[in-house]
Amino acid sequence: MFSLKECQDLMQTRLKEMGLPDSPGNLYDPIRYILETDGKRIRPALVLMGCNVFSDDISQAIHAAMAIEVFHNFTLMHDDIMDQSVLRRNRPAVHIKWNQNIAILSGDTMLIKAYEILSGTPASSLSSVLRLFNHTALKVCEGQQYDMDFEYSRDITLGEYLNMVELKTAVLLAAALKIGAVIGGAGDREADLLYEFGRNIGIAFQLQDDMLDVYADPLIFGKVTGNDIVSNKKTVLLVQALHASAGQQRKELITWLKTEKFDREEKIRCMKDIYDQLSLESATTSMVKGYHHKALAILDNLSCHSERTAPLKQFTESLINRKK
Amino acid sequence: MFSLKECQDLMQTRLKEMGLPDSPGNLYDPIRYILETDGKRIRPALVLMGCNVFSDDISQAIHAAMAIEVFHNFTLMHDDIMDQSVLRRNRPAVHIKWNQNIAILSGDTMLIKAYEILSGTPASSLSSVLRLFNHTALKVCEGQQYDMDFEYSRDITLGEYLNMVELKTAVLLAAALKIGAVIGGAGDREADLLYEFGRNIGIAFQLQDDMLDVYADPLIFGKVTGNDIVSNKKTVLLVQALHASAGQQRKELITWLKTEKFDREEKIRCMKDIYDQLSLESATTSMVKGYHHKALAILDNLSCHSERTAPLKQFTESLINRKK
Repeated sequence: MFSLKECQDLMQTRLKEMGLPDSPGNLYDPIRYILETDGKRIRPALVLMGCNVFSDDISQAIHAAMAIEVFHNFTLMHDDIMDQSVLRRNRPAVHIKWNQNIAILSGDTMLIKAYEILSGTPASSLSSVLRLFNHTALKVCEGQQYDMDFEYSRDITLGEYLNMVELKTAVLLAAALKIGAVIGGAGDREADLLYEFGRNIGIAFQLQDDMLDVYADPLIFGKVTGNDIVSNKKTVLLVQALHASAGQQRKELITWLKTEKFDREEKIRCMKDIYDQLSLESATTSMVKGYHHKALAILDNLSCHSERTAPLKQFTESLINRKK
Repeated sequence: MFSLKECQDLMQTRLKEMGLPDSPGNLYDPIRYILETDGKRIRPALVLMGCNVFSDDISQAIHAAMAIEVFHNFTLMHDDIMDQSVLRRNRPAVHIKWNQNIAILSGDTMLIKAYEILSGTPASSLSSVLRLFNHTALKVCEGQQYDMDFEYSRDITLGEYLNMVELKTAVLLAAALKIGAVIGGAGDREADLLYEFGRNIGIAFQLQDDMLDVYADPLIFGKVTGNDIVSNKKTVLLVQALHASAGQQRKELITWLKTEKFDREEKIRCMKDIYDQLSLESATTSMVKGYHHKALAILDNLSCHSERTAPLKQFTESLINRKK
């Protein structure tokens, strides 16, 4: 069985070997740039791990794994324009280093490249892999749209928020695992179980991201904390705070959201205070644990030897305790 | 045999029946909006006509035809952002009617939708159709990048310009025909001939577009003329003028390109004067005719009854004399 680390390293190597034309440089250089940065390569690794549950030959899933990673990086390139993010993995985002038009067109090209690479999937599973990929890609776009829509709304329910997270983040992890499973020869029931496993760890993963922005140890986290608070980003914490707060507390919360000029550290401290009064750290931690445990329980339902799911279990355990 | 008009009408009906989710509205409404405007539907009609050369059953090519049209409209939605075009088919462009982020994400969604629709192509030809579609889509992006790069250069050769036109415009028309041919059961030689036919009319089509901006009768054209001149757009006329002009004439040309505040009608008149001094209208008309004649000669090389290519011949003749 291949571990997460082995799958990540394999993908890192393969992505570096991916041939792209030299010209036009303004189209292909940004693609090389975003793919060469050291991403975590979790999604493509999950394709290989999903395949590995059902087959010892993970090489047949490499095209699909690459396609998923190229697709993911396409979404990052376009999301960075839409969210006006200046940095990506500690380097200038493509629309900053080049310009916005180049980021739009290079992103488009990556999306097409993802399909081109995906078509290298063995013919026996290509049709169902393509169907799942298309469906998932549309859901990811829907998730990003809801996320942008939420920016202008203060009345988002926790359910709406979790639905957005499922679309924007979780379905891609779920599809990565299921695509790997299908290529590895899994039956429908098994493939669907891996999808459900991925959906649950995907939601947990994003909720943890929201938490880390506020509660991470900056030294371990490697990034400044509090960015979501400063930018009024609708996170699971803010969504819950907007629902649970009342009276003076709610007034204070709204004032912080409306105030355009403020001291960064003061805003972070005061918002954290409100979150603490509402016990949101422990409430959200429980939610995250719930998703993790559900994911682990799903793995136990797979009708294969427990040894075959050991790497996925290990991966889940490492996620539960992640500090960055 | 189906005429161009019949194929266009069929596609217009099918595009209106294309089901899209209601929600999120900000994602799918712009797609409905751009697809419901009355485009010419030439590209999808060419898929059907390409199929019809080799088969009486054009229904099998409808998915591919729709995919090509959805892809084309995706490029329009993103190009309008990049080119800062305010109007599209006499209506506000999507990035103006909604906003830029929505135009980016709805465009992305259309590109994925195009692949989803394309996958409805009969299994027997899906793999080669997909390969051609991927290849073509990448070329179209390369063409748009060269077009944007040209904005900052005064040293574009006619060859470089024609290469850009081939990528940005011609390969999609060529691929539309070839994809139809493949679905219709054409052999490699026949399919490649249709591709070459489409490539030639595609280049002619774009050069005519460049000419119409300057020389069309505004009443028949239905649009204001001279926009390319006003915006310094590198057209086949300007590229040739930059190469052929000399001395005082060249100085005048460069001055017009550099001057930021000018009288619109005066700039158009003076630039037209330079084009006239260099006989660019007749030179370019000859070039266009050359491509058209080459296209017609290619059709004669097809080893099928001349009746089967009659609609494509008629289409070519109508292009030669187009005034809008």
